[in-house]
Amino acid sequence: MQLQLCSWPEVEAYLARSRGIIFPIGSTEQHGPTGLIGTDAICAEVVAKGVGDATGALVGPTINVGMALHHLAFPGSVSLRPSTLIALIQDYVKPLARHGFERFYFINGHGGNVATMKAAFSEVYAAIADANLPNAAKVRCKIANWYQAQAVTALACELYGNQEGSHATPSEVALTQFVYPEAIKSATLSPTVAPAGRSIYNSADFREFYADGRMGSNPDLATPAHGKQFYELAVKDLSNGYLSFLQET
Amino acid sequence: MQLQLCSWPEVEAYLARSRGIIFPIGSTEQHGPTGLIGTDAICAEVVAKGVGDATGALVGPTINVGMALHHLAFPGSVSLRPSTLIALIQDYVKPLARHGFERFYFINGHGGNVATMKAAFSEVYAAIADANLPNAAKVRCKIANWYQAQAVTALACELYGNQEGSHATPSEVALTQFVYPEAIKSATLSPTVAPAGRSIYNSADFREFYADGRMGSNPDLATPAHGKQFYELAVKDLSNGYLSFLQET
Amino acid sequence: MQLQLCSWPEVEAYLARSRGIIFPIGSTEQHGPTGLIGTDAICAEVVAKGVGDATGALVGPTINVGMALHHLAFPGSVSLRPSTLIALIQDYVKPLARHGFERFYFINGHGGNVATMKAAFSEVYAAIADANLPNAAKVRCKIANWYQAQAVTALACELYGNQEGSHATPSEVALTQFVYPEAIKSATLSPTVAPAGRSIYNSADFREFYADGRMGSNPDLATPAHGKQFYELAVKDLSNGYLSFLQET
Amino acid sequence: MQLQLCSWPEVEAYLARSRGIIFPIGSTEQHGPTGLIGTDAICAEVVAKGVGDATGALVGPTINVGMALHHLAFPGSVSLRPSTLIALIQDYVKPLARHGFERFYFINGHGGNVATMKAAFSEVYAAIADANLPNAAKVRCKIANWYQAQAVTALACELYGNQEGSHATPSEVALTQFVYPEAIKSATLSPTVAPAGRSIYNSADFREFYADGRMGSNPDLATPAHGKQFYELAVKDLSNGYLSFLQET
Amino acid sequence: MQLQLCSWPEVEAYLARSRGIIFPIGSTEQHGPTGLIGTDAICAEVVAKGVGDATGALVGPTINVGMALHHLAFPGSVSLRPSTLIALIQDYVKPLARHGFERFYFINGHGGNVATMKAAFSEVYAAIADANLPNAAKVRCKIANWYQAQAVTALACELYGNQEGSHATPSEVALTQFVYPEAIKSATLSPTVAPAGRSIYNSADFREFYADGRMGSNPDLATPAHGKQFYELAVKDLSNGYLSFLQET
Amino acid sequence: MQLQLCSWPEVEAYLARSRGIIFPIGSTEQHGPTGLIGTDAICAEVVAKGVGDATGALVGPTINVGMALHHLAFPGSVSLRPSTLIALIQDYVKPLARHGFERFYFINGHGGNVATMKAAFSEVYAAIADANLPNAAKVRCKIANWYQAQAVTALACELYGNQEGSHATPSEVALTQFVYPEAIKSATLSPTVAPAGRSIYNSADFREFYADGRMGSNPDLATPAHGKQFYELAVKDLSNGYLSFLQET
Repeated sequence: MQLQLCSWPEVEAYLARSRGIIFPIGSTEQHGPTGLIGTDAICAEVVAKGVGDATGALVGPTINVGMALHHLAFPGSVSLRPSTLIALIQDYVKPLARHGFERFYFINGHGGNVATMKAAFSEVYAAIADANLPNAAKVRCKIANWYQAQAVTALACELYGNQEGSHATPSEVALTQFVYPEAIKSATLSPTVAPAGRSIYNSADFREFYADGRMGSNPDLATPAHGKQFYELAVKDLSNGYLSFLQET
Repeated sequence: MQLQLCSWPEVEAYLARSRGIIFPIGSTEQHGPTGLIGTDAICAEVVAKGVGDATGALVGPTINVGMALHHLAFPGSVSLRPSTLIALIQDYVKPLARHGFERFYFINGHGGNVATMKAAFSEVYAAIADANLPNAAKVRCKIANWYQAQAVTALACELYGNQEGSHATPSEVALTQFVYPEAIKSATLSPTVAPAGRSIYNSADFREFYADGRMGSNPDLATPAHGKQFYELAVKDLSNGYLSFLQET
Repeated sequence: MQLQLCSWPEVEAYLARSRGIIFPIGSTEQHGPTGLIGTDAICAEVVAKGVGDATGALVGPTINVGMALHHLAFPGSVSLRPSTLIALIQDYVKPLARHGFERFYFINGHGGNVATMKAAFSEVYAAIADANLPNAAKVRCKIANWYQAQAVTALACELYGNQEGSHATPSEVALTQFVYPEAIKSATLSPTVAPAGRSIYNSADFREFYADGRMGSNPDLATPAHGKQFYELAVKDLSNGYLSFLQET
Repeated sequence: MQLQLCSWPEVEAYLARSRGIIFPIGSTEQHGPTGLIGTDAICAEVVAKGVGDATGALVGPTINVGMALHHLAFPGSVSLRPSTLIALIQDYVKPLARHGFERFYFINGHGGNVATMKAAFSEVYAAIADANLPNAAKVRCKIANWYQAQAVTALACELYGNQEGSHATPSEVALTQFVYPEAIKSATLSPTVAPAGRSIYNSADFREFYADGRMGSNPDLATPAHGKQFYELAVKDLSNGYLSFLQET
Repeated sequence: MQLQLCSWPEVEAYLARSRGIIFPIGSTEQHGPTGLIGTDAICAEVVAKGVGDATGALVGPTINVGMALHHLAFPGSVSLRPSTLIALIQDYVKPLARHGFERFYFINGHGGNVATMKAAFSEVYAAIADANLPNAAKVRCKIANWYQAQAVTALACELYGNQEGSHATPSEVALTQFVYPEAIKSATLSPTVAPAGRSIYNSADFREFYADGRMGSNPDLATPAHGKQFYELAVKDLSNGYLSFLQET
Repeated sequence: MQLQLCSWPEVEAYLARSRGIIFPIGSTEQHGPTGLIGTDAICAEVVAKGVGDATGALVGPTINVGMALHHLAFPGSVSLRPSTLIALIQDYVKPLARHGFERFYFINGHGGNVATMKAAFSEVYAAIADANLPNAAKVRCKIANWYQAQAVTALACELYGNQEGSHATPSEVALTQFVYPEAIKSATLSPTVAPAGRSIYNSADFREFYADGRMGSNPDLATPAHGKQFYELAVKDLSNGYLSFLQET
């Protein structure tokens, strides 16, 4: 059940039976020579819709641009500053909390979002307490990373071993291939497995070390069929995660 | 050509031939008893993709949540504060301008966005001048409202006369029906044509006067076939608009 | 009745009979080789005082600097960033709403203010709702552009035809001549009628195309006597506008 | 020479001979039962114009609303938050510094502005350094309080002794009477001399102790003739101050 | 070598031999019935000084208040909002980067700081790039949590097993006992081992579940002698971490 | 009684007998060739602890970095921007006011903090009123400068006459020598007494005139024994100040 495809009376009816809502959050950033710039948003969105279908949850529109300042040295990458993303999350949560939503589940496709989202949740709680929302103490936000679902990492390990890497990974590329088979790219990856292990600092520094944008990965291993497997595992795992989150007392 | 489906080398190659990029911007807000909450984002996105196809332009991901504070008394509506949207636009434009983009064309589906977007453009120009971007003086942003394309308003007038109204209009509802025929809603609209003519102030006030969320419209007149017509007219008109914008000296 | 010339007990007494207040808002920006930098503030202020006299309204002090970032390439021009103007309007409205004011009528002399002011009003409503002001739902803000009053544009059309233009117009120059006859400037305008029709982007770009600052206008046509006519028409029209605004339910 | 009454070429010519500019800054706040709400802005403005006449300085438009949060419990009082005033001052100074102005002299009428203005100056210097303005190291801002000019305080002491007080003082009331004799108020002041000596905290607290808004003063002692004397002394003193400021190396 | 105990010429001399600086960051928040409110700041500070002694690094003053919004339901707890902490870190790093510092090592005592600090680092890099600092691309920030040093967690596991918990842990309490033996508290802990496993949301919710403030811990197991062991292990581990950070290319 | 060395139940108990809290605020900035960079924080902290001991007041952790933007041209100096410091003070005061604290006494060691702190107090009062804290009207903040205590300035005058100066003064250096005798520096001061009398503007300008960082002072006159005298006088004076502040009605 997608928020964008509901009317407001349908949302009103939904609120009579549930206080939960899911938002996919991705990023718009380089994913190496063959990965899609929208990889993280595409993955988060498709998983979130799957979880919505599986659990009956309302799924809000995708936050397409996340916190990817460290990727900005590659053309086409876009990013919110952390302070902007914090303001944005506050703007998403506050009105919905006024409507009665109390459990906000952000399905995330980008590691770079995690820190800022956690900071944002803290700032949200403080802001709705300051605004004296009647249900302020009941509002809870959680971030769930599809790529860290246990079954997902197990499959990635089995399929790719140490060529999974940590950015422009074959697992995320596979998932985008499953969703957009028409957008599969090919390019010569050199080296086949990207360098790894260097900490991430600013964007200039990032590009100097990770010259083609990948981190430790060999995305050539990805196939759409793998993507389907990742999709199903992620949906199953995060559906359980969402239902547990709803049931928390 | 969608940014989200490109790799970064493809963007680099695109920049060798064009400095333009399109971003759809919509809203996530009530559209009456039968209109979709995502109406404005859906319409902006489909038109933008059409314009991208027609002109070869790069189309960025949709800004799904816009400035809709006046709709927040209806459940499911979400809004950025103007100050947040201004920060967001700055975060979108600044890195892309660093990559070499200079013409930013925002295809808009929501009247409530216009004022803040214009304010944002001014703030963007000042920010990139302060940051001494080498191409700061060349960066231009424009907002194009699909629903105000001349051919679109002419058709709406012909089809719906004074039942077009100004919010939850049959023309925008028709366009969403064309895109998502599976999400067509039905409900008894009472009165058939919504009240009109009252200025918009805060959200509580809005709901008091516009009780079901519509403004002056009768969305029951919409059909998917109309939607197709609106789509084609809007794409044609805004494609011309985009190309003119690129060619401005 | 000017706020600046009242004592606080007089304001308290005023509030017993009216909830309305008027603020003139102008700009401090170039107006071509002969127009005054303060044109927009001067016009807004004199019209607002006239409206105050005609309607018994309380008139606050003039907001002399507005949103004129696009004029900053001309010396002597000053501008608030949109985000600053939004904060400022919030600071003006919030305490007065606490005192009991509920209708804020901004008489505006500068087209560049309109977008940001509309954005500001939305942000104000959200801020006073967050602060739980008891009368938050009753607060309404409106912007009224003196130069767009119907009778004003009709007279400008009659007097100047297509030499009115859109910046440093003879109508606004005439109004300043009426108010400050001692500050009438003369200079050779070349071309007599300034170029027009180019969209406004950043300030460097603005000056490149609109080299002497005028847009499509021939301010040499202005006379103080015209200014008196404009003044009277604007006061009459905006007085009606203010009274209607007060009477809205 | 008032900025608002200049054309931009006149400002350009002025910059060829001087780098200085004066801005009056006042406040819009209660001044007891008989003082004008605009007292601080009126005084700052008239003195600034006098200084401009005496020294040939360019005088910008008055900042009518200052930092008066502690007065907000009295109807009609308005205030910028300090953070807003800091942003505003940055917006005033930055473009003018780009035009070539380097000495910003703020003639102030309100004690409550001083702390925030000093904070603002620091923030301005940092902002223009961050923006790499070529003359960043040369920009200097100074605040000059007319009511603390030595000759002014001496006259106030002579005329009013310990009934001068510190808010709604007879000296400032006298100056407004000189400027606006038509707006002289009368009311029974009780007690004749207001209480004094209590520190200022929040606005509710302020009103509790300073019940009619005055602090230690007896404004009934004011006369327009005194006002003329204060005016002349303040203009003389601050003219010297401005000229010294210009001549500082 | 403590920054606070240096003169500026000593810092200048230091910069000739090193580009690194360490800042301890803690928190001011409840640590259960017996833990010190300053626990996280005390621990970070003592470890940082130890690392400074061991490595010759310059150690800046402690950031005593961190991001602890979730603890605010307990009296005496203080917290920066994430957006404030992000601004603060920017203010610390930017001037020091201008002086030539390029490696900023934050020794951290509080898990709640991590997310916001990572967000802050990203925002810092963007800000110094916008300000065009000559060494912008070389600036790197890292956060190092003393309590997660491998040897520290190993010892905690050995000494306390599953009574270590995750807030008001015996290991951190032990370290404060080593530093401030005069401030060892005693109180009856009930239950002996605090509840655990519940996610952290807002502060009201936190206190409801974690009634005395502890999370899964039994701080009664702490002794000053343990504290000394933790101190030594942490200093050794983070000294190595700092030196590696300096040597990164 | 130091907050950092209390448990939260101890703070709860303290609140049953007192509503007051003290925060030392200093700065991290150059103090000439021989003064410590931490001088202002060290002095504020030691005096605050002394006042805490003398009065039984709770003393919070030191704000080590203040508003010292004008010192940033000297290596090792750090500063918050005024807007950051305002946000920080709001974050300190708001939660403590929720816990019941109502008198916030900031013992200050740095003249550059005063203006921003006063601005911050105003912004705090407005913020807690907006958040509708039940005790909002009772919250009071005060700043007390140890170096301006009457007995302190009298002793400085007696000991140093006109070699006290206004930055890197022998009195503050003496106090740091008393606290940290192991960190006494020596260097040839040239000239012996630093230049004075020039207003402070931006940091580049500051360093140009005050070449070694001192202002009008001869810190060579300082001795640890003097420092002890200053300490005792400051503690006595500010203890009285704090107690008076608590007793204000």
